[in-house]
Amino acid sequence: MANEEKYVEELADKEDDFSEWYNELVIKAQLADYAPVRGCMIIRPYGYALWENIQHTLDTRFKETDVVNAYFPLFIPKSFLEREAEHVEGFAPEVAWVTRGGGEELEEPLAVRPTSETIIGYSYAKWVQSYRDLPILINLWNNVVRWEKRTKLFLRTAEFLWQEGHTAHRSLEEAEERTRMMLDVYRSFAEEDAAIPVFTGRKSENEKFAGALRTYSIEAMMGDGKALQSGTSHNLGQNFAKSFDIQYLDSDGQRKYCSTTSWGLSTRMIGGIIMVHGDKNGLIFPPRLAPHQVVIVPIWRKEEEKVAVLEMVERVKKLLKGKVRVTVDLSENTPGWKFAEYEMRGVPVRMEIGPRDVQNNSVVLVRRDSRAKEFVGVDALTERLPVLLEEIQKALYDKAKKFRDEHTYYTDNYDEFKQILEEKRGFVRVPWSEDSAAELKIKEETKATVRVIPFDQPAEGMQGKKCFYTGNPATCEALFARSY
Amino acid sequence: MANEEKYVEELADKEDDFSEWYNELVIKAQLADYAPVRGCMIIRPYGYALWENIQHTLDTRFKETDVVNAYFPLFIPKSFLEREAEHVEGFAPEVAWVTRGGGEELEEPLAVRPTSETIIGYSYAKWVQSYRDLPILINLWNNVVRWEKRTKLFLRTAEFLWQEGHTAHRSLEEAEERTRMMLDVYRSFAEEDAAIPVFTGRKSENEKFAGALRTYSIEAMMGDGKALQSGTSHNLGQNFAKSFDIQYLDSDGQRKYCSTTSWGLSTRMIGGIIMVHGDKNGLIFPPRLAPHQVVIVPIWRKEEEKVAVLEMVERVKKLLKGKVRVTVDLSENTPGWKFAEYEMRGVPVRMEIGPRDVQNNSVVLVRRDSRAKEFVGVDALTERLPVLLEEIQKALYDKAKKFRDEHTYYTDNYDEFKQILEEKRGFVRVPWSEDSAAELKIKEETKATVRVIPFDQPAEGMQGKKCFYTGNPATCEALFARSY
Repeated sequence: MANEEKYVEELADKEDDFSEWYNELVIKAQLADYAPVRGCMIIRPYGYALWENIQHTLDTRFKETDVVNAYFPLFIPKSFLEREAEHVEGFAPEVAWVTRGGGEELEEPLAVRPTSETIIGYSYAKWVQSYRDLPILINLWNNVVRWEKRTKLFLRTAEFLWQEGHTAHRSLEEAEERTRMMLDVYRSFAEEDAAIPVFTGRKSENEKFAGALRTYSIEAMMGDGKALQSGTSHNLGQNFAKSFDIQYLDSDGQRKYCSTTSWGLSTRMIGGIIMVHGDKNGLIFPPRLAPHQVVIVPIWRKEEEKVAVLEMVERVKKLLKGKVRVTVDLSENTPGWKFAEYEMRGVPVRMEIGPRDVQNNSVVLVRRDSRAKEFVGVDALTERLPVLLEEIQKALYDKAKKFRDEHTYYTDNYDEFKQILEEKRGFVRVPWSEDSAAELKIKEETKATVRVIPFDQPAEGMQGKKCFYTGNPATCEALFARSY
Repeated sequence: MANEEKYVEELADKEDDFSEWYNELVIKAQLADYAPVRGCMIIRPYGYALWENIQHTLDTRFKETDVVNAYFPLFIPKSFLEREAEHVEGFAPEVAWVTRGGGEELEEPLAVRPTSETIIGYSYAKWVQSYRDLPILINLWNNVVRWEKRTKLFLRTAEFLWQEGHTAHRSLEEAEERTRMMLDVYRSFAEEDAAIPVFTGRKSENEKFAGALRTYSIEAMMGDGKALQSGTSHNLGQNFAKSFDIQYLDSDGQRKYCSTTSWGLSTRMIGGIIMVHGDKNGLIFPPRLAPHQVVIVPIWRKEEEKVAVLEMVERVKKLLKGKVRVTVDLSENTPGWKFAEYEMRGVPVRMEIGPRDVQNNSVVLVRRDSRAKEFVGVDALTERLPVLLEEIQKALYDKAKKFRDEHTYYTDNYDEFKQILEEKRGFVRVPWSEDSAAELKIKEETKATVRVIPFDQPAEGMQGKKCFYTGNPATCEALFARSY
């Protein structure tokens, strides 16, 4: 089809220039646009509809674990950021400062929140008196600002949307349990809703959150073999509780510090969905999150066919309402143009309805991922479509997992490690001594960092194994990769 | 009940000091808290759950009119704000400015958005080429900042949450139609979901939005007779289109300017709900928006009763799941304490389950608004509760409407006008000459302003009637009031 060819030509070659393919796709599919403010983005309706589905799905999962939502102020006094030493060191270089308001210079500059641990700490200290007030399980859906030098739509922008959860607990054990629980919520969400397989584990000291005791993350492999940190969960220990004096009177009559956690997932995830599932023709959205799960394309040549076709389109649309997310393209563009357009926009299923379909009271369904075609009677649609969508969901996950597993290597040799990164791309699993200085050197030499120290470690232990870089005794296996 | 008395004592007298009653209630019911940043608020989970219900209900109404959501940047370049002369004059004094970012002074200060017309204008100019691209119907759910001098939780805060809709059209007529359509969405939402009767109409020149051709609003009467502007809808004409060059190629081959609109409703609405429905014992939430529609309070004296009661509570909770929003208070507080607590928190229906109820397989339902009590068999609950909640919804609306109508007066005499404002409080309808200078004088003298020029004007017209203040020929009837 001529029109389809045209589209493919317009989009940069995915194999050849993955980065350019991504940039063009985000713009052409109208997911986002560059803002007239350095490093900021406009999330257009099609991209925002995906975000709304992410929000809804994740929010439901949060609420199942007794988390409630709230809102905290955008502005954080400078003195708050400074109370936790590691925290301010980590975030101060990226902060945007409000220095004037209402026509006057402010006495104390206000940070536009890069994250809310400090103002949360202040409030929880006020709210928590006794062990009966614990745990506090609050999540915020909001916008944050981090003045990034190099930006890329969805992946790294000066302002982004996210959720940040903040909990306070009676004991460190309970905080650890919650930290791991929320990481598992992210894992389930990524794997089941976004169809993205992830590695889970602990971050290295270099890579952990500024002010955290321990950071866990989910790491996904993009279509070019690079890693995307897609969600993080931090056990903050008593660090923030001590800086902000979050104390409670325990049942034994003693005043004790709380242990706190925080965890976040952002609009980055949209970048991940694009880069994991997309192909040379454009986006492929996982059905559970897709803004439109099905697009109906009516087809006719003669005017007298049009009436019957549109009548059937209307009937099918009504039939599916509330069961499947359907859109109809009634524009004057050709069917061929529409086929290519919705391929590019990643709609999981295309439904074609033409004169012959009207006669047979059936429709043609075409999968975005495999282009497999099937004819389905209208009476069977409400049963077939949800099943088909789940089949696609599963196929996307399986394909992404196969790709990831094929591009995940093991070595205990640094030369081979470098060769894999250069030639094969992907993740490399190595025996590792957890040496922070060595990690920085490896980063300098190869651009790769520890993505996680995976939860699943060799059953036989690390006894006798040597670090692939330092040669010292290895304490664990680590997963290295270049990353976004 | 001693505990209940205690609560009533703790809350300021509503008749005596409405403002203090409001302030205390917001804090005690844990709807919001003061932030450590001047004029900002923390919306606590109970308040935010109300906001989530407002969002969901309103968003559904928007989408029914083909509006889609998107996200635009928090920061707006100074030069953008300055492009529309009236707009910058109106907003500049209230802007918070970011002047430093990433460790450097910015070349151009960035406004923290007070509203997004300008950055929307910039983008729509890029996106709109032909008449085929129109209309654009976009809504944003976000946070905005206006550096207010005097603040009050929910009603006037330096940062607040809202939605701002922005549409672009081919003709002024179509823009006007959309402006009125969205006002009507606000009216239906206020009356049907928030149970708040509103006056609808046009704003005076003094009170219209900075940069608008015409502003319409919904105005509600609070429990102290003052007005709350609860939602506004602006026909911006071609003002912003000309400032930002939003042009399209029409079907006749001519390039023309779009006409645009904007419309917003904010967390102020929460203040309105509190001030319209609340009584001396606390909040009364309209069932359609209430975070919890029913609170179950289990009652027992002896330990052997407890098991059976809790078993029944669990059973009833399960029965109602997904049908009614239910919460259960299993804390160790006394039933009396709980009764008062949930009265204060405004839960529309209290369900009591005690040993006798277990025997009868029935429960006691107590309405928050009238305290009317009824016994309902468990088998009838799923049928009765939704009906009861709608009865309460209607009763709240009727009560608010009766209060409003009783406190809305007519006069054509300025002395009487002043007397009504001082002694009776409420709204005053007058014959009016639409004289802006006179309106400012009246405001100086009485603190009252034109809230709206209502849509419903005398059927007989204004012929021969004189302005209540200037004595000049009246052109319309206007609704004056003191306002928040």
